[in-house]
Amino acid sequence: MTLNAALLQADKDLDVSLNRLFELLRIPSISTRPENAPDCRKAAEWLTATLTDTGFEASVRNTPGHPMVVAHIKGPADAPHVLFYGHYDVQPVDPLNLWHSDPFEPAIVTTPSGEKEITARGAADDKGQLMTFIEACRALKTTCGTLPLNVSILLEGEEESGGENLLPFLQANKDELKADVALICDTNMLSGGKPAITTMLRGMTGEEVTLTAAKRDLHSGMYGNAARNPIQVLCDILSDMRDGATGRVTLPDFYEGVPVIPEETRAQWCEIASETGDSLSPVGLSIPAGEAGYSALEQTWSRPSFEINGISGGYEGEGFKTVLPSKASAKVSFRLVGDQDPEKIRTAFRAHVLARLPADCTAEFISHGGSQASMVSPDMPFLPPALAALEAEWQKPAAITGCGGSIPVVTEIQQALGMTSLLIGFGLDDDRIHSPNEKYNLSSFHKGIRSWIRVLYALTGQAPA
Amino acid sequence: MTLNAALLQADKDLDVSLNRLFELLRIPSISTRPENAPDCRKAAEWLTATLTDTGFEASVRNTPGHPMVVAHIKGPADAPHVLFYGHYDVQPVDPLNLWHSDPFEPAIVTTPSGEKEITARGAADDKGQLMTFIEACRALKTTCGTLPLNVSILLEGEEESGGENLLPFLQANKDELKADVALICDTNMLSGGKPAITTMLRGMTGEEVTLTAAKRDLHSGMYGNAARNPIQVLCDILSDMRDGATGRVTLPDFYEGVPVIPEETRAQWCEIASETGDSLSPVGLSIPAGEAGYSALEQTWSRPSFEINGISGGYEGEGFKTVLPSKASAKVSFRLVGDQDPEKIRTAFRAHVLARLPADCTAEFISHGGSQASMVSPDMPFLPPALAALEAEWQKPAAITGCGGSIPVVTEIQQALGMTSLLIGFGLDDDRIHSPNEKYNLSSFHKGIRSWIRVLYALTGQAPA
Repeated sequence: MTLNAALLQADKDLDVSLNRLFELLRIPSISTRPENAPDCRKAAEWLTATLTDTGFEASVRNTPGHPMVVAHIKGPADAPHVLFYGHYDVQPVDPLNLWHSDPFEPAIVTTPSGEKEITARGAADDKGQLMTFIEACRALKTTCGTLPLNVSILLEGEEESGGENLLPFLQANKDELKADVALICDTNMLSGGKPAITTMLRGMTGEEVTLTAAKRDLHSGMYGNAARNPIQVLCDILSDMRDGATGRVTLPDFYEGVPVIPEETRAQWCEIASETGDSLSPVGLSIPAGEAGYSALEQTWSRPSFEINGISGGYEGEGFKTVLPSKASAKVSFRLVGDQDPEKIRTAFRAHVLARLPADCTAEFISHGGSQASMVSPDMPFLPPALAALEAEWQKPAAITGCGGSIPVVTEIQQALGMTSLLIGFGLDDDRIHSPNEKYNLSSFHKGIRSWIRVLYALTGQAPA
Repeated sequence: MTLNAALLQADKDLDVSLNRLFELLRIPSISTRPENAPDCRKAAEWLTATLTDTGFEASVRNTPGHPMVVAHIKGPADAPHVLFYGHYDVQPVDPLNLWHSDPFEPAIVTTPSGEKEITARGAADDKGQLMTFIEACRALKTTCGTLPLNVSILLEGEEESGGENLLPFLQANKDELKADVALICDTNMLSGGKPAITTMLRGMTGEEVTLTAAKRDLHSGMYGNAARNPIQVLCDILSDMRDGATGRVTLPDFYEGVPVIPEETRAQWCEIASETGDSLSPVGLSIPAGEAGYSALEQTWSRPSFEINGISGGYEGEGFKTVLPSKASAKVSFRLVGDQDPEKIRTAFRAHVLARLPADCTAEFISHGGSQASMVSPDMPFLPPALAALEAEWQKPAAITGCGGSIPVVTEIQQALGMTSLLIGFGLDDDRIHSPNEKYNLSSFHKGIRSWIRVLYALTGQAPA
C-alpha cells in the first residue's frame, strides 16, 4: 500500500509542490549571460536546500563554471542505485516583447481548450521536469520514511551554454556518482499523451574534405574542359556516396553493426507515426528521402545516414564569374546507430574519396569528431519495469523511441561512468522550449511526479501494490 | 615593287615610328580611373592628329564614356574595305613599386639574351599593337601616295573598363563602319615567334540554379536521412552532366553544330602543342580533364565544355554545424563552339535539372547570358592571303588557332555590323600585359608594321610583288 500512499500524497501536496516549483522558476538562472551567474548559484543553493529538506545529503559543488548540485539518499542496502540527472539553467528570454507575461513570474493559465499550463522560462526545460523527480522523492519519503532504492541526484547549470564542465566533473567524481542506471528527465512524451522512453540516440562522424586541382584559380574560358574542375570532382564523389535507387550509403561494410529493429517495435512506431502524423509535412516535405523501405521515423530513429552539411567552391557571390577554381570543399556527417564505429566510418569515407580522385587532384581531410550511437537493449533489466510503470500511470502503452541526434549527457555518462541512461520525460512537442511563452502542462507536472513514484518503485523489482 | 618599297620605308622610318609610339605611351590613358579621363581624351586627340597627319580623315567621337576615334582613307574604288579595331586605353599600374621604371616613360631595354624590349604600360596592350597598323598605313601612303585598299579605323578607350559604349556606338554608326572584314590587333603570336590568326572563339551560356527542399534549415540529427538534402540532389544532378568514362557532356543533342576540326589543322595544333609545351603544367596540372581523345589544346580551342564555376550550400564557415540546409545553388557555364545555340543549351540544361528533381525539391534558374561562338571558315576569302602574308614576313608557316574564351569586340562587330574579324597580333605570352613591367618586343613592333603592310597588300588580292 506504500505506492498508493505515495501517489495520494503527491495528489494532496500538488499545490505545495507547485509553490516550490514556482520559487525555482522565479530565479533567472540564464547560464549563458554572465550577469546571471549569481542567479545560477542561487538556483543551485535553492535546490540544495530543498533536497536537504526532502531528506537528501545535498551540496553545492563548484566548477570552473556554474556549480553542480549533488545529493544522495540511501534506500535498502540491497536495492538498486539510480542516478538522476537534470539541469537548473535556462535559455535566455529574448525577444522579451513576445512573452505574454513575465518569463520569471510563473503563472497557471487555462487555455481555451481547458488545459492548465504552467508558463515561465524553464517551466518545461528543465526546471518543471527535474522537480517532478524531486517531488516524487519527497512524497515517497513523507509516506514511507525512506525511499525504495538508493538515489543520487546530479543537477548541472550549464546544459544550455555548452556544458563543458560536465564531463570533467563526472570523471573526477566517478566513485561518488556511479550507479546502476541513470535517469534523465529532459525529453518529451509522444503526442496524444503517450508515455515514451528514448532508448536509441544516433552517434555521429563529422568530416571535412577539401579538394585541390590547379595551383591557382583559372579562367574557365582559357582552361575550361582541359583543366580538372575540383567542384565537378567533389560532386561526382559525393554523388557516389548514396545508391540512387535504394538510398543506401555505398561505403563498404557501412551497415555492419546496424541492428535490426524488432518487428514489435516497428509496429509500435508505425502506430506512433499514424497517430502523430508525418514529421516531414511541418517543414514542407512529403516523402522520406533516405533508404527505401523505411518510414521517415525509422530512417531518423534507427537507420544510419550520410548527409552533406555544407559545400563551397568557386564564385558564390551575386552575378557571375567565369572562374575555374583551384579548390572545393564539403562538410559531411554520418549519423550512426548500433555498433557502427565512428572512426572506421571516417576511414572508409576517406578511402572512398581517395579511390575516386582523378589525376591532378589532391584531398585534405579535417576530422570534426565522432561519437558512437547509444542504445538501450530491450533486455536491459530496468527497461521493462519502467515501461510498465509509465503505462500504469498514463493508461496507455509506453513506447520505445529513438532520437535522430545525440544528447551529449548520455554519451558523457556512458563514457565517464560506464552507465546506461533511461530517458524519461513528460514534455510535449508544443511546450515552446527555447522560445517565448514556454509552458509545461500542469498534467505533465502532476502525472510526472506520479510517474516517477511508480518508476522508482518498479525499479526495485517490487510489483506495484 | 610598291610592297618592297613600303617595307623598306618601314625599316628606314623605324626610329621615327618608335618616337611616335613613345609619345602615345607617355599619355597615362587609364580608362578605369576617373582622374585619368582627361588623359584618355588626350590619347584620342593625339591619335586623331596622327591619323590626320598620315592622310586619314579622322575625328574624335564623343560617347557617354571615353571618346572613340574614327578614321577613313580611300583606296581604289573596287578594292576591299577593311575596318581596323584597336584600343588606346590601358590598365592601371598598381603595384607601382614592382615596376623597374616609370610605366609612362617608355624605354628600350636590352635583355641578357640580347632581345630589345619596349617597356611601358600599354607597350603591348594595345598601343604598341595598334601603332603597328597605323605605321604600316603611313609607310604605304608615303611610298605609294595611296593605300592599296579602303581602310577604316576604330579605336576605343574603354576596352579595359567594361567597354559598355562600344556596341551602341557600332550600332549607331553602322553605315559608316561596315566593311568587308574587321582586323583586330589585340592577340598574341605563338611562342617561338610563329605567326597566328585566331579564327575560333568559344561562345558561352551562363546559368545559375538554386534548389530548395524543406522550407527552412533543419537539424541533421533530427531529420538526416528522411528529409531531402538539396546539396546531395545538386551533386547528383551536376555529376550527371558529364559522362565519367568519356568526359562528354550528357545533354541530348549537345554536340549538334560542333564542327569537326580538319585533320590538317589538328596536325598543326599537335605541332604547336609540342613546340609550346603543355598549357597545363604551368598551373600544376598534367592530364587534359575533358573529352577523351582530344589534347588540352583541342579541348580548349575547339571543343565545347561544361564547367561548374561556383557552388554553395549549408554551413561553409570554420568548424562544423549539423545543418541540413533548405537550399543549395550552383553557377555553371557552357563554352560553345561552331553553331551551338546558347539558348537551346540553356533550355536543355534546365530540362536536365528538372528531369532529375526528386519529390519535395524545386528549382529556380537565373540566366547569366549567352553568346554564340565565332568561327572564321577556312574558306573565308581573306584568310588564306592573310596567312600567306604573315608566313612571308616571319618565314614560318602561319597557324590557325582557337581561343577558349570569348573576345567581346568580335561578338559585337559580328552582331552590330555582321562582319567577320581576323585576329592578328604580334604580342607574346611573356609580355606581362595587365602586370608590372609590361613590354613589347622591338621585333614585334618592327615586324608587326611589316606584317600589316604585307597583309594589306595581300587582302587586295594582289600577289606580293
